[in-house]
Amino acid sequence: MQLALSTWHEVEEYLRTSRGIIVPIGSTEQHGPNGLIGTDHLDAEFVSKGVGDEIGALVAPTLTIGMSQHHMGFAGSVTLRPSTLIAVVGDVVTSLIKHGFERFLFINGHGGNIATVTAAFDEIYAASSMRGPGESSPVRCKMVGWWQGPRSDALAKELYGDVNGSHATASEVSLSQHYHPEAIKHAQMSPKVAPKSAGFFDCADYRRRFPDGRIGSDPSLSTPEHGARIYQAAVADMVDTYRAFAAD
Amino acid sequence: MQLALSTWHEVEEYLRTSRGIIVPIGSTEQHGPNGLIGTDHLDAEFVSKGVGDEIGALVAPTLTIGMSQHHMGFAGSVTLRPSTLIAVVGDVVTSLIKHGFERFLFINGHGGNIATVTAAFDEIYAASSMRGPGESSPVRCKMVGWWQGPRSDALAKELYGDVNGSHATASEVSLSQHYHPEAIKHAQMSPKVAPKSAGFFDCADYRRRFPDGRIGSDPSLSTPEHGARIYQAAVADMVDTYRAFAAD
Amino acid sequence: MQLALSTWHEVEEYLRTSRGIIVPIGSTEQHGPNGLIGTDHLDAEFVSKGVGDEIGALVAPTLTIGMSQHHMGFAGSVTLRPSTLIAVVGDVVTSLIKHGFERFLFINGHGGNIATVTAAFDEIYAASSMRGPGESSPVRCKMVGWWQGPRSDALAKELYGDVNGSHATASEVSLSQHYHPEAIKHAQMSPKVAPKSAGFFDCADYRRRFPDGRIGSDPSLSTPEHGARIYQAAVADMVDTYRAFAAD
Amino acid sequence: MQLALSTWHEVEEYLRTSRGIIVPIGSTEQHGPNGLIGTDHLDAEFVSKGVGDEIGALVAPTLTIGMSQHHMGFAGSVTLRPSTLIAVVGDVVTSLIKHGFERFLFINGHGGNIATVTAAFDEIYAASSMRGPGESSPVRCKMVGWWQGPRSDALAKELYGDVNGSHATASEVSLSQHYHPEAIKHAQMSPKVAPKSAGFFDCADYRRRFPDGRIGSDPSLSTPEHGARIYQAAVADMVDTYRAFAAD
Amino acid sequence: MQLALSTWHEVEEYLRTSRGIIVPIGSTEQHGPNGLIGTDHLDAEFVSKGVGDEIGALVAPTLTIGMSQHHMGFAGSVTLRPSTLIAVVGDVVTSLIKHGFERFLFINGHGGNIATVTAAFDEIYAASSMRGPGESSPVRCKMVGWWQGPRSDALAKELYGDVNGSHATASEVSLSQHYHPEAIKHAQMSPKVAPKSAGFFDCADYRRRFPDGRIGSDPSLSTPEHGARIYQAAVADMVDTYRAFAAD
Amino acid sequence: MQLALSTWHEVEEYLRTSRGIIVPIGSTEQHGPNGLIGTDHLDAEFVSKGVGDEIGALVAPTLTIGMSQHHMGFAGSVTLRPSTLIAVVGDVVTSLIKHGFERFLFINGHGGNIATVTAAFDEIYAASSMRGPGESSPVRCKMVGWWQGPRSDALAKELYGDVNGSHATASEVSLSQHYHPEAIKHAQMSPKVAPKSAGFFDCADYRRRFPDGRIGSDPSLSTPEHGARIYQAAVADMVDTYRAFAAD
Repeated sequence: MQLALSTWHEVEEYLRTSRGIIVPIGSTEQHGPNGLIGTDHLDAEFVSKGVGDEIGALVAPTLTIGMSQHHMGFAGSVTLRPSTLIAVVGDVVTSLIKHGFERFLFINGHGGNIATVTAAFDEIYAASSMRGPGESSPVRCKMVGWWQGPRSDALAKELYGDVNGSHATASEVSLSQHYHPEAIKHAQMSPKVAPKSAGFFDCADYRRRFPDGRIGSDPSLSTPEHGARIYQAAVADMVDTYRAFAAD
Repeated sequence: MQLALSTWHEVEEYLRTSRGIIVPIGSTEQHGPNGLIGTDHLDAEFVSKGVGDEIGALVAPTLTIGMSQHHMGFAGSVTLRPSTLIAVVGDVVTSLIKHGFERFLFINGHGGNIATVTAAFDEIYAASSMRGPGESSPVRCKMVGWWQGPRSDALAKELYGDVNGSHATASEVSLSQHYHPEAIKHAQMSPKVAPKSAGFFDCADYRRRFPDGRIGSDPSLSTPEHGARIYQAAVADMVDTYRAFAAD
Repeated sequence: MQLALSTWHEVEEYLRTSRGIIVPIGSTEQHGPNGLIGTDHLDAEFVSKGVGDEIGALVAPTLTIGMSQHHMGFAGSVTLRPSTLIAVVGDVVTSLIKHGFERFLFINGHGGNIATVTAAFDEIYAASSMRGPGESSPVRCKMVGWWQGPRSDALAKELYGDVNGSHATASEVSLSQHYHPEAIKHAQMSPKVAPKSAGFFDCADYRRRFPDGRIGSDPSLSTPEHGARIYQAAVADMVDTYRAFAAD
Repeated sequence: MQLALSTWHEVEEYLRTSRGIIVPIGSTEQHGPNGLIGTDHLDAEFVSKGVGDEIGALVAPTLTIGMSQHHMGFAGSVTLRPSTLIAVVGDVVTSLIKHGFERFLFINGHGGNIATVTAAFDEIYAASSMRGPGESSPVRCKMVGWWQGPRSDALAKELYGDVNGSHATASEVSLSQHYHPEAIKHAQMSPKVAPKSAGFFDCADYRRRFPDGRIGSDPSLSTPEHGARIYQAAVADMVDTYRAFAAD
Repeated sequence: MQLALSTWHEVEEYLRTSRGIIVPIGSTEQHGPNGLIGTDHLDAEFVSKGVGDEIGALVAPTLTIGMSQHHMGFAGSVTLRPSTLIAVVGDVVTSLIKHGFERFLFINGHGGNIATVTAAFDEIYAASSMRGPGESSPVRCKMVGWWQGPRSDALAKELYGDVNGSHATASEVSLSQHYHPEAIKHAQMSPKVAPKSAGFFDCADYRRRFPDGRIGSDPSLSTPEHGARIYQAAVADMVDTYRAFAAD
Repeated sequence: MQLALSTWHEVEEYLRTSRGIIVPIGSTEQHGPNGLIGTDHLDAEFVSKGVGDEIGALVAPTLTIGMSQHHMGFAGSVTLRPSTLIAVVGDVVTSLIKHGFERFLFINGHGGNIATVTAAFDEIYAASSMRGPGESSPVRCKMVGWWQGPRSDALAKELYGDVNGSHATASEVSLSQHYHPEAIKHAQMSPKVAPKSAGFFDCADYRRRFPDGRIGSDPSLSTPEHGARIYQAAVADMVDTYRAFAAD
């Protein structure tokens, strides 16, 4: 069930039996020679809608722009400053709290969001934690990467072994090829496997270390058929995650 | 050409011949008994992609959450505070300036965004206007509602006359029915035509004045066939708008 | 009745029978070769005091600095960033709410303030709209240009026809000449009628388009006698506006 | 010379020979049983204009709302939060720096502004102090109370001895009676001399300590004739202050 | 009693009989040729702990970074912008209010903090002063320099007469030598007594006026023996200050 | 070498051969029945000074207050909101950049700081990443927990096996007992080993899950002798970390 495709009457009805909502969040940033700039938010959205369809959980519109300062050395990347993203997450959650939502599962497509979104959750909790004694809020926020479940993990290892990588991964490129076959790009990878990361700092530093944008990956291995399997695995993992979280 | 479906190499290539980009912006808010909560961002996105397809302009990911404080009395509505939305627009534009973009056409789906996004543009310009003498920036931002062209205007009058309305309009509902036929909702409208607006204030005030969420409209008249025609008109209007703006 | 010229006992007394207040707001920005930099705030203040005198409405001190980033290319212009003006309007309104005021009519002298002040009102409403369900606030804010009534409109057309213009207008210059005859300036207008606006962006762009600061106007037609008539018209219009708003 | 009554050409001319400007700043807050709510900004403005007239210094529009949180327990008081006032002062000074101004003398009417405006100056300096090594700015900001000169001080002692007080002072009330004789208010003072201050905290605390708003003063002694003498003394003092500051 | 060396059970116990807490605050900034960069926060901390030990008052961890923009021209100086320090003080006080603290005595080591911390207190009070009528808070914040008592004042005069100075004072250097004898530095003072201050602005201006960092002082007179006496005097003074404040 | 115990001349000298600095950061929050509220910042400070002493690296004053919203249900805990801590870290790093520092190693005592401080680093990098093309900054920031080295890890396992825990750990309590033996607290642990964490949200939620404040630990095992060994291990680990980072 998608929030964007529902009426307010339907949401009112939904809230009679559930207090949970899924918020897909990703980024708009370079993903190497053959990865799409929207990979992270498209993957998160696709998996989230899959979860929503399977178990009737409500899925909010996707937060398409994340914290991507390190990718700003590559054309087309867009970033929110951490302070802006904290404000966005705060407003979205606060808005939904007003209607009675209490469990917010952010299904994330971008590792670079983790610190900032975690800080955003703490900014939200701080508002109740710093109020008078005895005040308390039933609100719980949790973020999880769509690939962070046992099925996805096993499948990535099976398909790509050591060269799935950590940015512009073979998995995430495959997943986007599955639902956007019309946008499959072909590119030579040179070197075939991108250098691994030992950390990076601002965007000029990042580009110096990772000249074509990839980290540790070989996304020339990606195929839409892999993407179909990855999708099934990720949805199954996230269904488990949502159910455990919503029931807690 | 969609930014989300491009690689950074393709964007680099695009920037050799164009400095313009389209940013769809909408809202996530109630749209009456049969309108979708995502109507405004879905419509803006759909029209923007149409423009991008027709003339090869680059289209950024959609800003799905807008300034919707007045709709917060209806379940499922989500708002950014104006100060948050100003920060978001500022970061998005500043990010793209870095890559060389200079013409930003925001195709808007929500009247409630106009004041805040205009203020956001002024916040961006103020940064260069308040710097030392002689400093100047080539950046130009413009916002236009997808319905604000001569063809759309004439068509809305032809189809709905006086009862297109100003929120949950018959036009915008038809447009969303065109591309999301699976999400067409049926509802009794009571009264058939919603009350007109003489202004409103916070969300409790809004709901008092407009109990089912609509303003001045009768979206029971909406059909996907109308939507197809509205889509053609809006894309043609926005193509003209973009071309004039990009050439200026 | 002016807030600045009242004691707190008198304000307490006023609040027994009225919840309304007028806030004059303008700008400090170039107004072409013969217009005063303070035109917008002086006009707004003068009209507001006229309304206050005629019907006993309380008039707050004038907010003299507005959103004028586009005028920063001309010496003496001063601007608040939109985010600052939003904070100012928020604090002023919140302060007065504490004492029991509920109807805030901002009589405005500067078109460039409209977007930002409207956003400021939404920031204020958002505070109650985003709180718990059922919360509501009786506060209503409205902004109107002092020239936006039927009498002012007709008179401007009668006196200046097509060349009243949209910045450094013949009307606003006349009005300031009426109450500050000692500060009437004489200047050659070249061209006699300034170019019309098709939009503008930052202050360097503005100055390129409008080299002496005016837009579409011929303020060499201005006279203090016109100003006296314009004043009468504007006060009568604003009295109607205030009464309708306060009674709503 | 008043900025509000000048054209931009005149300001351009002024900047050929001077880099200095006077910014009157006051407050909008209760001033006891017979003091005007606008006393602080009206006094600061009146003295500033006197200085400007006497030596041709440019005088900016008055900042009418100050930091008055402690007076919010009395009807009609309006405050900016310190963070808002810091933003306002920053924007005003930054705007004027763009045109070439370098010496900013804030003539202040309200002791409660001192801490916040001093912090605002440091926020401005911090912008250059925290930039790269060797960067430097010629900008200097100074704030002075209009009563803080030797002539004003001696006169206040002569006229009121110990009972001039520290809020709603006999001096400041006299000064406002001089230029607004139509707004002289008559009230019984009970007790005749208000309690002295040993400090205060929020507005409820303030009202408990100073039930009619005054601190340590007997403004029933105020007369417009005193006000005329106080005005002369203050202008002469501030002329000296401005000259020393501008020459430094 | 130090907060850092207590358990939460002990703090709970403390709150049964006291609502007061001491917050040491200083700076991290140059203190001339022989003064330590940490002088201000170390002195404030040392005196505060002395007070806490003597009368059992709770002492919070030291706020080690203050408002030091004017010292940024000397290596090692660190500053918070005023807006940041206002946020820090606000969060610290708000956190402790939650547990029941109501009297906050900031023992300060740095004159440059006074304006900003006073503004921070007003920002805190403004939160309750701007809320609905009748709301009130028992919270009281006060800041005092550790040297601002009669004993310290007399002793500084006795030991150093006119050349104690106003930055890198002989007193404050002696005090730090008392508790950090291992860090006593020896340096030629040239000139022996630093120039007095007639005000300063940004850090480049400060360094031009005070080339070795001192203002008006001769800290070559400092000795750890003086420091021991200064310590006794300051603790005795601050004990009086705390007792009067906590009892109020 | 401690920044607080140095003169500005000494820092200038230091910068001739090194661009690195260590910033200890911790928290002020409950640490269970026998742990000190200052444990996290005291441990980080103690280890940092050890590193500084051993290899002559400069150590900044400790940031004593961290992000501790979840501990606000226990008396004495103090938190900064994430947005405040981001501003603090930004100002400290920016200040030191001005003097020429380029490598910032934050030695951390509190897991709850990780997300927010990482976001703060990204806010700093974003400032250069969002500027014009080709701009770049040599600045690198890194945070590491003092316990996150191989020696510390092995020792914790040796000493406490499974019951070191994740808050109020046996290790961190031992370490603080080593340098503050006068503040060793004795308390019954009930249950002996605290419950493990499956996540937590606001402070009321935290207290419900962990009634005495500990997570997964048995700090009744802590001894100052353990602390001496833990100190040696942590300093050795952090020396390696600093050297590798500074050389990079």
